[in-house]
Amino acid sequence: MSPQELLLVLELAGIFAFALDGALTAMRAAHLDLLGVIALGMVTALGGGTLRDVLLGNLPPANLQDWRLLFTATCGALVAFYGHRLLSRLSRPILLFDTAGLSLFCVTGAGVALASGAGPGQAVLLGAITAVGGGTLRDVLVRRVPTVLTATGGLYAVPALLGAAIAVAGTELDLPGLPVALAGAGVCAAVRLLGVRYDWHAPRARLRAPDALDE
Amino acid sequence: MSPQELLLVLELAGIFAFALDGALTAMRAAHLDLLGVIALGMVTALGGGTLRDVLLGNLPPANLQDWRLLFTATCGALVAFYGHRLLSRLSRPILLFDTAGLSLFCVTGAGVALASGAGPGQAVLLGAITAVGGGTLRDVLVRRVPTVLTATGGLYAVPALLGAAIAVAGTELDLPGLPVALAGAGVCAAVRLLGVRYDWHAPRARLRAPDALDE
Amino acid sequence: MSPQELLLVLELAGIFAFALDGALTAMRAAHLDLLGVIALGMVTALGGGTLRDVLLGNLPPANLQDWRLLFTATCGALVAFYGHRLLSRLSRPILLFDTAGLSLFCVTGAGVALASGAGPGQAVLLGAITAVGGGTLRDVLVRRVPTVLTATGGLYAVPALLGAAIAVAGTELDLPGLPVALAGAGVCAAVRLLGVRYDWHAPRARLRAPDALDE
Repeated sequence: MSPQELLLVLELAGIFAFALDGALTAMRAAHLDLLGVIALGMVTALGGGTLRDVLLGNLPPANLQDWRLLFTATCGALVAFYGHRLLSRLSRPILLFDTAGLSLFCVTGAGVALASGAGPGQAVLLGAITAVGGGTLRDVLVRRVPTVLTATGGLYAVPALLGAAIAVAGTELDLPGLPVALAGAGVCAAVRLLGVRYDWHAPRARLRAPDALDE
Repeated sequence: MSPQELLLVLELAGIFAFALDGALTAMRAAHLDLLGVIALGMVTALGGGTLRDVLLGNLPPANLQDWRLLFTATCGALVAFYGHRLLSRLSRPILLFDTAGLSLFCVTGAGVALASGAGPGQAVLLGAITAVGGGTLRDVLVRRVPTVLTATGGLYAVPALLGAAIAVAGTELDLPGLPVALAGAGVCAAVRLLGVRYDWHAPRARLRAPDALDE
Repeated sequence: MSPQELLLVLELAGIFAFALDGALTAMRAAHLDLLGVIALGMVTALGGGTLRDVLLGNLPPANLQDWRLLFTATCGALVAFYGHRLLSRLSRPILLFDTAGLSLFCVTGAGVALASGAGPGQAVLLGAITAVGGGTLRDVLVRRVPTVLTATGGLYAVPALLGAAIAVAGTELDLPGLPVALAGAGVCAAVRLLGVRYDWHAPRARLRAPDALDE
């Protein structure tokens, strides 16, 4: 499987996972109808990669050019809409699909950035932006403070940065693509899920009286 | 009238309608002052076309280059601010201006996309993105769940996709520009207004207990 | 000091100020943890310049390419996190840092736009967009109506437009860079702070009954 094909397969899997995530969020958090569910599913699935392509200057973005990506996003949203009873048998389905999308997109985002001539540091950053971008748009549209800021229980940007760094390091060292991609995605998913399970979080600042800082 | 001139005229009309829409929303939903009204009017009027140009890579966007577009958006906001008593005599003015902008922008967006070398499918999608983009930014800025997701009573993205599809099909078939544009905009407006009138909406998923899905 | 060096120094200062602003907002308004504080600080500090570069087609944006900009933003966020007790001794620190960032970015944004071949009018507009962009993203992410719309007490977009106009006029007249930049930033800061101090605001529309306009 060529590196391009590998990236495409992982991208399609990430899009499908984020489409399920966004569509379930649309039904659960915003009680949207079928069209709203499809719309939020597509924004969640395609937002991160579109943001990445805009920042890289790859315009029009692949998400608007390649019908396979659009089709996969739509399918994911439809599966979530008609299969939500089945999906809700999973424990915390939204967390699972969000983690899957996060882990796959940090790897594919970094890979696309490197392939577009970005430096290693930029590629790590763009991988993380790709991974957190769609979910951030999703949260803004349904009026929630984005997970990347709150990471309610567990880390969110950190695992994405870790996964992207592993993918970039492996590529720079010319290691075989598939194991590198799986390692990056696996580490990202593990850190994300362990963080939620054991409620890892960064320290909070102890503020004095509310008037300590102005609005 | 050349195709370019036709697109410009329709774009100016759509910008004016969306500027009225955004400015009235700023007064009605957010009680902003004159400057806030102008700002929200301009974001609503210029947001969709700017997003379209960014996605097409037409940078800097026409909305920042052509003073006529900026001027029209400002005029629309000022008319809404000083003429709101008159405008509020209309039944549901915000709905009317939003529908006008939606119908004109799905056609102009698709036309600009085709003229920039986008394929038919992409052009339909970009037409719809142009049409719903400004209103979505408007809703996010005043902290409402965007109409494109909720479409409270009636459809929103569907009429935009229909209008854009008609415009693209007509252009591909080399039909004369003006009738095609009017047909696309007319169908979009009709479907939008009939949808509101008769409360068309897509099915909602019947969720089980709230704990069926995690947050 | 070459014009490029001057722009870089002012940009770094603006990024630092906005990073403090965003990070303090994250602690005060959203009670985020260290990672959320860094994330919101970086979005606030780098959002405006990234938006400017996207609109100018300078891709990838300087904010993703130049490690000095990323490093400064991170430092600002860390200083705010660990030094918030000290910073909160200032009267209204968020207002001060926000004003500093606004004043510096309207000048640097206009300068970068001119250097990228934008016309004077566009450059003024892009300067203002650069100045208000980061704070607007910050407010949307923590679910507040953006300051640029409400400008609660005092003006926000107007001082940015003034500062950018002065910077553009000075550059067009080939006046020496440093004094021009200081004049632009100084006027912007003065108008912003005086506006807050004396509660300058534009007129509000007197609306009739709530039903005067539809939702």
